[in-house]
Amino acid sequence: MKTIRTIQFLLLLAVPILAVAAKVPDPLPSWNDGAAKQTITAFVQATTTQGRSTFVPPAERVAVFDNDGTLWPEQPMYFQLAFALDRVKALAPQHPEWKTKQPFKAVLEGDLKTVLAGGEHALIELVMATHAGNTTEEFARIVEEWIATAKHPKTGRRYTEMVYQPMLELLAYLRANGFRTYIVSGGGIEFMRPWTEKVYGVPPEQVVGSSIRTRFEMRGSKPVLVRLPEVNFIDDKAGKPVGIHSHIGRRPIAAFGNSDGDLQMLQWTCIERQPSFCLYVHHTDAKREWAYDRTSGIGRLDKGLDEAKAKGWTIVDMQKDWKVIYPTVPK
Amino acid sequence: MKTIRTIQFLLLLAVPILAVAAKVPDPLPSWNDGAAKQTITAFVQATTTQGRSTFVPPAERVAVFDNDGTLWPEQPMYFQLAFALDRVKALAPQHPEWKTKQPFKAVLEGDLKTVLAGGEHALIELVMATHAGNTTEEFARIVEEWIATAKHPKTGRRYTEMVYQPMLELLAYLRANGFRTYIVSGGGIEFMRPWTEKVYGVPPEQVVGSSIRTRFEMRGSKPVLVRLPEVNFIDDKAGKPVGIHSHIGRRPIAAFGNSDGDLQMLQWTCIERQPSFCLYVHHTDAKREWAYDRTSGIGRLDKGLDEAKAKGWTIVDMQKDWKVIYPTVPK
Repeated sequence: MKTIRTIQFLLLLAVPILAVAAKVPDPLPSWNDGAAKQTITAFVQATTTQGRSTFVPPAERVAVFDNDGTLWPEQPMYFQLAFALDRVKALAPQHPEWKTKQPFKAVLEGDLKTVLAGGEHALIELVMATHAGNTTEEFARIVEEWIATAKHPKTGRRYTEMVYQPMLELLAYLRANGFRTYIVSGGGIEFMRPWTEKVYGVPPEQVVGSSIRTRFEMRGSKPVLVRLPEVNFIDDKAGKPVGIHSHIGRRPIAAFGNSDGDLQMLQWTCIERQPSFCLYVHHTDAKREWAYDRTSGIGRLDKGLDEAKAKGWTIVDMQKDWKVIYPTVPK
Repeated sequence: MKTIRTIQFLLLLAVPILAVAAKVPDPLPSWNDGAAKQTITAFVQATTTQGRSTFVPPAERVAVFDNDGTLWPEQPMYFQLAFALDRVKALAPQHPEWKTKQPFKAVLEGDLKTVLAGGEHALIELVMATHAGNTTEEFARIVEEWIATAKHPKTGRRYTEMVYQPMLELLAYLRANGFRTYIVSGGGIEFMRPWTEKVYGVPPEQVVGSSIRTRFEMRGSKPVLVRLPEVNFIDDKAGKPVGIHSHIGRRPIAAFGNSDGDLQMLQWTCIERQPSFCLYVHHTDAKREWAYDRTSGIGRLDKGLDEAKAKGWTIVDMQKDWKVIYPTVPK
């Protein structure tokens, strides 16, 4: 009997030891232990543990992510602008008039400063000249080709190799816990959809973005959607809650952004009536990525930073909270 | 040994007998056996049987359904118009000017003929006066209250008790086979979302419809979306492929409609490059429902009927193909 008791005692001791041994691997290995990581895992536990007052049914576990500056960089310019500039160069032979017409002339001469000096008007003109005039299928193929080959001027990486590794882990962690992850970006919806599933695991129907108008046409027996040079919807700032409501029809319970352009999306998400989580990625890492906030032209984070602090939203200090920035790319 | 062999032999015999005994119940019990039912089940088998050349991966199994006339009736007027008329009556005390102003005067006097004689202009005025001016949350609550209490003038049923039983079975059958079912309706997206999940099993993010503009506002610390009296998008005719592409970003492989307003959606779906299925519900049952097609003001099916015949799309003869129209409602 004594032997059996001893074995029982040892078995009891072993239970916690085994529990430790069987512990699931860290779902966020690229995140340093700290307040940001802790608030994320605490929120997921709070909303997914059955019986807790903060439990949220899977259907309502909607998480929305900004893209530029939140899932991948936006410096020295939005990656979609790099795409537009490359398109101008590719289309230039068909547009001899661009040699003398701004902002195209500046693009062809590699004079980014003059392009940007043209402000929003010049950018819209570039987008319309490079994003419209073809069918949705043709445009998707052009984006696929570009994203598979173009490289970032600073890092020499493909743009899809510059997505943030810690955010990839966060997307996967949320999905593993029954969340649906949406992208809600000021970028073009049709610019993102061809590659977001492969790169982020986000399927086309979970991408919300800015858009130009399209028109249905029968070309012989072939139905097409033609992309028109007219703005349809700008999914930025106060447009983000509008885009979320239109596409999802539910209020998210978690929102992730990096700039004042995401503030309304975070305000819309983090209200008192529900368990909710809001997070800002703060670009503090001039060495490994870029450092900018209150005075930046692109991705300014000023009002949002104050509101995040006042409301206790999570602020990721990129330099301190992230072990790595980009995924390891096979040489 | 001989006994064991015999048992083994009997067991082998039993396998097909058990397979027959365990046959799943008919997933479409309200459909009479006939061409329509056969084409549906054949399509589902073709697209879901692994190894067949027509197999479609679950993520791409997108089926789109018109609502008015396809999932529930549209006679003697669109049910959403009945909602708008009821709202005019409810709001009339706050609008004394409506007593003398058309089309409101006619609504208050129960003179539907004059209302409809005002054409599209009058209808838009009614929609704007009854669907705008509140927040998205307030509007959803108004719809929920109306749909829970209002009754159809002819049948005395609640509107949600007039959904087509055979189509409810079809929605469930497709979902059981890994399809995602979307509604793509000319009706208001915000008019449908509050009840489509409960009634059809279609969650808010899978509802596409017409919309008015909304504007984000902070009311003190409370963020709201205010509904504005401006048309945003008309999800009808050539608008349906546009709405599908905007919300889903994938081409459906199955489309279900009942009128010329659905023709472009069916054209967009049933192209040669993929296994696809297009179906028209033909209203042929004056006794149990309504009978109308080529000359009807509401839900005209003329050009679509010709194209369906030419292209070999499935046409449901409501009178012959459906055993029942509406679900059994407990008394």
